[in-house]
Amino acid sequence: MANGAQALLTALHEQGVEVCFANPGTTELDVVRALEAVPRMRCVLGLQENVCTGAADGYGRMRGVPAATLLHLGPGFANGIANLHNARRAHTPIVNLIGDHMSWHLPVDAPLTSDIESLARPVSGWVHRVTSAAEAAQVGRAAVRASLASGGQGATVIFPADFQVGQAGGEEGAQAWESAPASSGPDLAECAARIESAGKVLFLLGGGGEASGLGARAQCAVARLCRALDAVAYAETFPARAERGGGLPDFDRLPYFPEPARQVLDAADLVVLVGALPPVTYFGYEGHPSRMVEPARLLTVGAPGEPVADLLEALADRLGAPAWNADATPPLAPASGRLTPERIAATVARLLPEDAIVSVEGGTCGYPFYAASAASARHTALTNTGGAIGQGLPVALGAAVACPGRPVVALLSDGSTQYTVQTLWSLAHENLPVIVLIAANHQYGILRKELARGAAPGARAEALTSLERPRIDWTALAAGYGVPARRVETAGALADAFGAACAQGGPYLIEMQL
Amino acid sequence: MANGAQALLTALHEQGVEVCFANPGTTELDVVRALEAVPRMRCVLGLQENVCTGAADGYGRMRGVPAATLLHLGPGFANGIANLHNARRAHTPIVNLIGDHMSWHLPVDAPLTSDIESLARPVSGWVHRVTSAAEAAQVGRAAVRASLASGGQGATVIFPADFQVGQAGGEEGAQAWESAPASSGPDLAECAARIESAGKVLFLLGGGGEASGLGARAQCAVARLCRALDAVAYAETFPARAERGGGLPDFDRLPYFPEPARQVLDAADLVVLVGALPPVTYFGYEGHPSRMVEPARLLTVGAPGEPVADLLEALADRLGAPAWNADATPPLAPASGRLTPERIAATVARLLPEDAIVSVEGGTCGYPFYAASAASARHTALTNTGGAIGQGLPVALGAAVACPGRPVVALLSDGSTQYTVQTLWSLAHENLPVIVLIAANHQYGILRKELARGAAPGARAEALTSLERPRIDWTALAAGYGVPARRVETAGALADAFGAACAQGGPYLIEMQL
Repeated sequence: MANGAQALLTALHEQGVEVCFANPGTTELDVVRALEAVPRMRCVLGLQENVCTGAADGYGRMRGVPAATLLHLGPGFANGIANLHNARRAHTPIVNLIGDHMSWHLPVDAPLTSDIESLARPVSGWVHRVTSAAEAAQVGRAAVRASLASGGQGATVIFPADFQVGQAGGEEGAQAWESAPASSGPDLAECAARIESAGKVLFLLGGGGEASGLGARAQCAVARLCRALDAVAYAETFPARAERGGGLPDFDRLPYFPEPARQVLDAADLVVLVGALPPVTYFGYEGHPSRMVEPARLLTVGAPGEPVADLLEALADRLGAPAWNADATPPLAPASGRLTPERIAATVARLLPEDAIVSVEGGTCGYPFYAASAASARHTALTNTGGAIGQGLPVALGAAVACPGRPVVALLSDGSTQYTVQTLWSLAHENLPVIVLIAANHQYGILRKELARGAAPGARAEALTSLERPRIDWTALAAGYGVPARRVETAGALADAFGAACAQGGPYLIEMQL
Repeated sequence: MANGAQALLTALHEQGVEVCFANPGTTELDVVRALEAVPRMRCVLGLQENVCTGAADGYGRMRGVPAATLLHLGPGFANGIANLHNARRAHTPIVNLIGDHMSWHLPVDAPLTSDIESLARPVSGWVHRVTSAAEAAQVGRAAVRASLASGGQGATVIFPADFQVGQAGGEEGAQAWESAPASSGPDLAECAARIESAGKVLFLLGGGGEASGLGARAQCAVARLCRALDAVAYAETFPARAERGGGLPDFDRLPYFPEPARQVLDAADLVVLVGALPPVTYFGYEGHPSRMVEPARLLTVGAPGEPVADLLEALADRLGAPAWNADATPPLAPASGRLTPERIAATVARLLPEDAIVSVEGGTCGYPFYAASAASARHTALTNTGGAIGQGLPVALGAAVACPGRPVVALLSDGSTQYTVQTLWSLAHENLPVIVLIAANHQYGILRKELARGAAPGARAEALTSLERPRIDWTALAAGYGVPARRVETAGALADAFGAACAQGGPYLIEMQL
């Protein structure tokens, strides 16, 4: 007879959870022991919990089914909250397993006791504390279902140690996967009428799985609609996942700062939300309303995480839109000279391998790359959805685990990558084909941009946004974690190094000096 | 007229907050700008938030007054929760400043919005959201007072961006420091009577400031009491701070595992709690009660964080205890041969500089060092109070900032130090005299010890507790962060390297191969 931990893990696996990103401690040891009974569940060790939760985010974005995380009590879970925050904004399904003390040990408030529920709720759509070993299998099934609800979310199981080893309930048999109930969706005729009668139309596309607004089919349908209606389309500013390149339509992202974003949005009589949320400013800026489009100018044809491709194709057909034919994109020209963000973007975009997954984080190269990569080979782009930095490298780890055979590129900045630098070890440990590109400008560049919007920054602002004295040697850090690395200063050297890294297959880090 | 951020920072500084450990983001930029107006508040940048909170813990333990942290919204704060958990268990006063969106921007649920209160409460004795710029100065004063209440705790201020720039209230004049009200304390005669009438007495000493149970005066008084009563004394298992060596009494720590701890405790007819909590097992272990001593055998003469030295001296006088004279301790003998935990402990204990602060984390060397260092030069030991690992290195950073001129040694393990490895950069940036000793056994040793208590661990347990493939090269990581480093394999080489590191003054890392 299975114990609680075996029953819960077996239930997770039967419901499609194939990978567990783990950093266990003492209160999870019986879950670790139980893993022997579920040999087909792959375990990937992270040296810090935000590595694990970010990897689960990357995995879930690529697969549409949850990975599990295994984390140690409140403090271990807390270390993973930042990337769960990003995952929440990405609508990624994730099942978190958190061990807790023996249930009878909690009242004495031992050193590692804390209010786990209070920590978990802000990043979990569903939180459940296991109350007996007998219910463990049922909880496992419910957690997977919960993670797939509401377009994808975090489902967190708090698992006291005594219920891990207690005897599980009788097998109820493998239960069929219950997918989240499909929402009724908007009425096609109504949408068509509203769009046809509007003046200037702007489609705002939300990212997600294959059938999302930034999946290939939806983008092609939107391109048809744009031609038929003389409309424009934008991707949301930070999509969880977008299919790009290889002749797909070239939609820009909605700009980050309110002035250029408003310029785009104010020109539209109707903003059609295709799996995107109503656009709001990223931060509150004096003199700019938070909601950039008033409700009367909004039409929602799909909530985040909902499939919209069928609806958009039907809409294009109904409006008699012409077929989509990819424009012939001119080949990208090689860049040369000392590295700049634009030259980095041009070089990586030009050499990007077919079918690559690109995890983009950091203001330095993110925008230039997104612009240049419309002309790249077909690829999938993943961005930082929630603004908690330290997301790009763990997401790349998770994407590589999710999609064996696809090359993964992490295009990152030096400031943000520090938060989860330990990810490098997991890349080496698992020997994953992830090319890590660090744009090293030795500062928190985004903060300097934000500071430049106000009064001239003083010495303290300068000091607190500087990563000089000493400069971080990324090739040494990579060597420390067993990842081969090289530093480059010119576009030509980057092209050489990137080409070589693509060819060799394992993890590789390139420090790009700016 | 000051704005809200200037007023709050000025109030903090007037109340004794001299240092801010910071990792700010966009919503804290007006606090960063306001720092120009408070030039005497030192700012120390951490590259990840758990570095900042752990450093604030180390600072507060050494100084008894709070440092501030400056953290970015919910996700940035979340990154620092684990070390705030440790600080909570250490009763360390800390003031956390968390920026938040403009108050009018919160309803739109922008990407970085989250329930900060829910994240903050589990590690804060006091949480306050600023509701106007006018109250900012008052909030700053209240936060410092709150941080010093209840023997020391976290006080967390959530500071919306609009109230940072709004006009502050009129100056109410520098308010006198209101120290936390002293508790009435136990009755001396009652304590004396209870102790005299008991059979075998055991004193359990809690760590903290100079006047705590593990301060020098209290330990000498307890040593007198032990002689007078034929009693024994132990330090709590994980003291926030303990004065050690230089002829101070040699009290062992209460053992970690329940069997040896119970052996010690069961032999006592009365357990006198001197600033320590009633002893409980660290985890729940089947067959062991969580509370290791029943209430009838407990006598509390001081709560954690309360001064007890005066009371203990009075008690020793009242009971006619003889004066304390340090035993002559034999000099420590040099160790030789390949490194073992015991040889590391003996070497570091022997060469420890006078007046050093030692931050000890990790099961590998922590216990052997604590035993050996009774014969060291006089020093202060800081341990991991809350069990959230990744604490030792940030605490060393904070202790070095708190106590210029005192050498700091961080005696750490490879597994736990990974969680906050970014601390190395701050040590280099601030050029602090911190010697980082990494016991590299390439495994999560404590988990293997816990696993060994149950059935033989399988392959998954082996894999999830191994830090092999690849081995982390700590000298390369140190070089990456600008900290000179060396790898040693023998006790002799460690002695050489440690001696050289002590002499050179700045940060230095020694990887100790086990």
